[in-house]
Amino acid sequence: MLSVDRYREEFEEYLSRKIIKQEPANLYDPMVYILSLGGKRVRPVLVLMAAEIFGSDYKKALDAALAIEVFHNFSLVHDDIMDDAPLRRGKQTVHERWDINTGILSGDAMLIKAYQLFENYPGETFRQLAELFSKTAIEVCEGQQYDMDFEVLERVQIDEYLKMIEYKTAVLVGASLKMGAIVANASEDNCNRIYEFGRLLGIAFQLQDDYLDAFGDPDSFGKQVGGDIIENKKTFLYLTSLQQSASREAIQLEHLYSINPPDPTSKVETVKSLFESSGAAELTRKEIQKYTQQAFAVLDELQVEEDRKKLLYNFGKGLMNRQV
Amino acid sequence: MLSVDRYREEFEEYLSRKIIKQEPANLYDPMVYILSLGGKRVRPVLVLMAAEIFGSDYKKALDAALAIEVFHNFSLVHDDIMDDAPLRRGKQTVHERWDINTGILSGDAMLIKAYQLFENYPGETFRQLAELFSKTAIEVCEGQQYDMDFEVLERVQIDEYLKMIEYKTAVLVGASLKMGAIVANASEDNCNRIYEFGRLLGIAFQLQDDYLDAFGDPDSFGKQVGGDIIENKKTFLYLTSLQQSASREAIQLEHLYSINPPDPTSKVETVKSLFESSGAAELTRKEIQKYTQQAFAVLDELQVEEDRKKLLYNFGKGLMNRQV
Repeated sequence: MLSVDRYREEFEEYLSRKIIKQEPANLYDPMVYILSLGGKRVRPVLVLMAAEIFGSDYKKALDAALAIEVFHNFSLVHDDIMDDAPLRRGKQTVHERWDINTGILSGDAMLIKAYQLFENYPGETFRQLAELFSKTAIEVCEGQQYDMDFEVLERVQIDEYLKMIEYKTAVLVGASLKMGAIVANASEDNCNRIYEFGRLLGIAFQLQDDYLDAFGDPDSFGKQVGGDIIENKKTFLYLTSLQQSASREAIQLEHLYSINPPDPTSKVETVKSLFESSGAAELTRKEIQKYTQQAFAVLDELQVEEDRKKLLYNFGKGLMNRQV
Repeated sequence: MLSVDRYREEFEEYLSRKIIKQEPANLYDPMVYILSLGGKRVRPVLVLMAAEIFGSDYKKALDAALAIEVFHNFSLVHDDIMDDAPLRRGKQTVHERWDINTGILSGDAMLIKAYQLFENYPGETFRQLAELFSKTAIEVCEGQQYDMDFEVLERVQIDEYLKMIEYKTAVLVGASLKMGAIVANASEDNCNRIYEFGRLLGIAFQLQDDYLDAFGDPDSFGKQVGGDIIENKKTFLYLTSLQQSASREAIQLEHLYSINPPDPTSKVETVKSLFESSGAAELTRKEIQKYTQQAFAVLDELQVEEDRKKLLYNFGKGLMNRQV
């Protein structure tokens, strides 16, 4: 087994060999561009790690890992168009650097290319990977749709919100791990358990992301703290706070989420104190803990040697060990 | 074997049972909408017909036929965004009726759904269908990219133009027929031959479409005659005319393709007379005939009973028997 950093390096090397310029340039250059912007490569690393945990050489899993990363970047290209985002990882988004049409069509080609990468696997492995991929990809689309729907919806239920982040983010984490397991011919039970581990950890991670957006350390959190509040984003914190508040505080919170003051400092501070006083901050911390513990509990049932389980455990710990 | 009309009816019935409303509505309603707008359903009919020609019940091919039609409509939804088209089959396009984001995301979901329809086939059939589908889908994207590139390109070569229409249109016709053959477990030779028949006929059909756009009977041709000329579209007629013209006529033609007069009547007439006098009209008719005859020649090599070959022959005849 290699370290996470080594898996990342091996993956980067493979990606740079496989994703190369092709004609027509306007279709393939954006693919090379977006995939060269880097990122932590969490998902492909998980594919490689899972493959080795279940006894396969990680090299066998490189194409599945690449498929996951190409798909993830396809979804970033199309999401950035939908969100009208100018920047991605500090660089111009594809539709900014080229145009919207190029973003749409290159994204389409990336989605198809992801499927083609599975063709390097034999019969039943190909089928299992393609089926898991399609199921996951459709859920990611549904998650993105719910996310866009919630922006204009008056009332969002907390369970609907949880389903949205599960589909938009967590299922791809679960699918990454399961793909590594499939490549390694792991048992069906092990495949399903490692998927569950990833799905639960993915939900915990996204809830933590919501939490840190409000309460994170401005120095260590990558994004602008309070960004979700400024954008009136209906996160788990907000929805829980509304649910837990007396009617006066709920009205105040809803009012604050209807305005866009030029200087948001005081709005952010007031909202954060409402998140605290309503008990929503505490409930969110508990929810993060709940999903994290559920994820680790699934690990216990995994039929592999303890030292390999430990790798997944450490990975999960590392992921959740940001400044809460 | 059924008639083309009966295949179409059976397909429509299947489509209306399988493509139904689902949540989230904003993701799936556009899919139901675009697929309910009708059309000739040429591609799915070809899937069903090919399956029966090679001895299978057409019912076995319904999912492959549906996949092809869902994919075709995915490409229409995304192309209509790229072309800024307000209407499709006389009705609002998806991005007009909803918005661009809905068009992008629903299109993505349709592409994935098309792949999922192949999951209804066993092992090797699934793999062959999915691989042919990916190869074809990538080519359709490349064709669309070349088409957009050519709009802004000064010089387009005739062979580049032919490759563009082959990828954008013809390969999906070939793939439709081959999918029917795959479902029916036809021999590899027969699969490849029926693909070639479709590909060649598809090129002939697209060239004929170009030709009729200029020289078709305004009463029987579905679209506005002269539309390509008005839009300065670099078709086979135009590129051949440029190539065949003496430099004075070539300069005149290029000039006419640089202007957009409010009343295009005289421009259309002059361009058409240049297409005739340069010999491009005649050369285009010959090229259509060449591809049509090549398509029929491939039929001769097909290893099936003559009466079944006859069906493909009649289908091709019917397709090419518009008013040239």
